[in-house]
Amino acid sequence: MANDSANHKLILLRHGQSEWNEKNLFTGWVDVPLTDQGRAEAARGGELIAENQLLPDVVHTSLLRRAMNTANLALDAADRLWIPVKRSWRLNERHYGALQGKNKAEIREEYGEEQFMTWRRSYDTPPPALDDSSEWSQAGDPRYADVADLPRTECLKDVLERFLPYWNEQIVPDLKAGKTVLVAAHGNSLRALVKHLDGISDEEIAGLNIPTGIPLFYELDQNFKPVTPGGRYLDPDAAAESIKAVANQGKK
Amino acid sequence: MANDSANHKLILLRHGQSEWNEKNLFTGWVDVPLTDQGRAEAARGGELIAENQLLPDVVHTSLLRRAMNTANLALDAADRLWIPVKRSWRLNERHYGALQGKNKAEIREEYGEEQFMTWRRSYDTPPPALDDSSEWSQAGDPRYADVADLPRTECLKDVLERFLPYWNEQIVPDLKAGKTVLVAAHGNSLRALVKHLDGISDEEIAGLNIPTGIPLFYELDQNFKPVTPGGRYLDPDAAAESIKAVANQGKK
Repeated sequence: MANDSANHKLILLRHGQSEWNEKNLFTGWVDVPLTDQGRAEAARGGELIAENQLLPDVVHTSLLRRAMNTANLALDAADRLWIPVKRSWRLNERHYGALQGKNKAEIREEYGEEQFMTWRRSYDTPPPALDDSSEWSQAGDPRYADVADLPRTECLKDVLERFLPYWNEQIVPDLKAGKTVLVAAHGNSLRALVKHLDGISDEEIAGLNIPTGIPLFYELDQNFKPVTPGGRYLDPDAAAESIKAVANQGKK
Repeated sequence: MANDSANHKLILLRHGQSEWNEKNLFTGWVDVPLTDQGRAEAARGGELIAENQLLPDVVHTSLLRRAMNTANLALDAADRLWIPVKRSWRLNERHYGALQGKNKAEIREEYGEEQFMTWRRSYDTPPPALDDSSEWSQAGDPRYADVADLPRTECLKDVLERFLPYWNEQIVPDLKAGKTVLVAAHGNSLRALVKHLDGISDEEIAGLNIPTGIPLFYELDQNFKPVTPGGRYLDPDAAAESIKAVANQGKK
């Protein structure tokens, strides 16, 4: 818990490959497991954290098993599985509405490139809502029993709005207490956080992708502004490769 | 969190096989990982919990990875990985002192059956203390930074004495709140708890072994006394087999 400088230390980790990443399906809040590759990515993420001597004092995760297991595998690899765990639906992936369970390439073909990219990357246009009767609905899931207004679809703006209260009330106090914080979450909940930290515009955020399983380290100043804009990937070469691959999702 | 009756629901789970169980070494506080068999046992434990509709609302674990990973694997199999997690060194295995890292069969041969069984099963005779310079010492381990008086060896009585405050202050309140509680821990921390719950004498507890990976369910009345003494294993046949095997440890 000792801090070398007065700055805050934050590590972001997007979950490793899930079974639906592999199948190129829209996942959102559907609780799919990691693949073997995803588990290996998570463990490698933990090794990078340990090699860089950025040992977390507390971990925050979503309520989805791909993020929780990524955190567990990474922390076990870094010999920090014993640190306190905090979880919230506010760190969940963006709810993809009626697209959940659908193949990305098929949606692209059926609706065309423009609609596909609007649903995937526009800041404030959510996909059609998911019906509660869908097999991919989270209505009635006991883990969300305390969520007053369960999302049925979300755009990135919605994600940022439900994530920010958790950031301010749960994560910032841990950082202020001098703790190194690990946030294990998802492509879009982490994009929302990065947009907030780096002050990225609604337009520019469309072009920002976060690779799976590679820890992204932010040193934050006393105003919680990044000392280095965009932070620093602990494996920059792998991050660059992976960002290209994420950008190509939806292409066959 | 709904309770069918006014009674409390408690599930005890001893971690699956660890690498040192397999090698027949005294483990104690040494933080060894599960074997593949241990991971499979843990997942099977979670399936038994789900089949018996005993879904935990909160999990308490030790700070040792074999118990933490057993909890995680079991909860993932039961689709309850998202529940709150509480951890404490007070749920750790008995500290085996200078025996940690030593082969059980060799100790039995070197010191004889009587001394061996005294160290393993007497209620109030601890083994010789472990020196802080030992490679198996936990002195300086950051996970115990807040522990005022770190054990260097323990008998079962010591385990009960450091476990009871946690039982009363952390676990009982969760049970009182109507939560189904999972405790994922160790052979001797769970023996201490069972001794307390069932009012087992200092002599009789020597003969009680708890199998790995098989959930032990206790329904407790309003005074936290077991409705059925000894509780109920969710796989009674496997439990009986395993108890025999544990009793034979130290034999070649």
